[in-house]
Amino acid sequence: MAGTIPTLERLIDCFASLPGVGRKSASRFAYFLLDMPEDQALEFSEVIAEARKNIHQCPVCHNLTDSDKCPVCDDEKRDRSVICVVENPRDVNSIERTHEYNGLYHVLHGLISPLDGVGPDQLYIRQLITRLSDDTVKEVIMATNPTVEGESTAVYISKLIKPLGVKVTRLATGVPVGGNLEYADEMTLYKALQGRSEI
Amino acid sequence: MAGTIPTLERLIDCFASLPGVGRKSASRFAYFLLDMPEDQALEFSEVIAEARKNIHQCPVCHNLTDSDKCPVCDDEKRDRSVICVVENPRDVNSIERTHEYNGLYHVLHGLISPLDGVGPDQLYIRQLITRLSDDTVKEVIMATNPTVEGESTAVYISKLIKPLGVKVTRLATGVPVGGNLEYADEMTLYKALQGRSEI
Repeated sequence: MAGTIPTLERLIDCFASLPGVGRKSASRFAYFLLDMPEDQALEFSEVIAEARKNIHQCPVCHNLTDSDKCPVCDDEKRDRSVICVVENPRDVNSIERTHEYNGLYHVLHGLISPLDGVGPDQLYIRQLITRLSDDTVKEVIMATNPTVEGESTAVYISKLIKPLGVKVTRLATGVPVGGNLEYADEMTLYKALQGRSEI
Repeated sequence: MAGTIPTLERLIDCFASLPGVGRKSASRFAYFLLDMPEDQALEFSEVIAEARKNIHQCPVCHNLTDSDKCPVCDDEKRDRSVICVVENPRDVNSIERTHEYNGLYHVLHGLISPLDGVGPDQLYIRQLITRLSDDTVKEVIMATNPTVEGESTAVYISKLIKPLGVKVTRLATGVPVGGNLEYADEMTLYKALQGRSEI
């Protein structure tokens, strides 16, 4: 086989390190990038460096930000008596998109998962407890995913919080809007039945 | 919704410009990159800039290279009497991986496609004809994809080459190795029957 181009191989390696990207897609991305106008490709490179250098965690809620505090923690109009606990910064965006939540957030940056070697100490759980030390916060909403890891993390944290006299709630589980009962799994239907409400 | 981070949005835009990547995957890539160790993310950025600056087309065959000529054109051991014409540099790699071809290449960088506004003048067809001007080349293998655009480009180029007295051949079409007749489409089976050979 003809000698390969080392820089090209490194570029393919970089793309292949992204989640869900195999060698074939990575090589497609790499060739696409080499086909781009040069200024556009160089901008891609600069944006990566800039983003990685400027974006860091908010010291209060550990969401991502490019200023001192994240926009949510900085916003005087947000309700400081509620904290919504999520797994990662993407989940903050998902909840913000509903335009229905006006409280604060706390990003754990992971879930407790003994199989992956992630214990409570690797997450920002201690920092959450510290935020509850004055009496401002009245409710903590556990908004981790309804998976095994998400549920057990929610239970673990709620056990730590309850003794402090703060209300802990959990996102509702059930059939998604627009969903189809026929295709819903037994566990989801069971939870939907359990959580039924009067109309 | 909370103020978004402009650099993060630009990073997502960059990833979303890659082929087959939607906003959701792009945002997943962006957050993954922000989670990477800083040196790894900065290397990603550098490799993109470096690759885009150093990798260019080979002046002879228009394949990609980071030196004066591409490794194939530079290799004294390659058979200079055969040129294999392909759509893009990825196809060169595919054919090289067979370890069965020892001739030269010519990369068109596209296919004739009037619907997409791509005519023969936008491809490196003129440069291919120029390469045939001395009598070194005895055969041109048309290895464009067996699609409508690939076939018509092959036919167009073969009509230009034949008057020069150079043999033009085409890749065989048929049932792929390990394939299943039951799942092969009619056109593939028809071509496989037409191209049958004695055993």
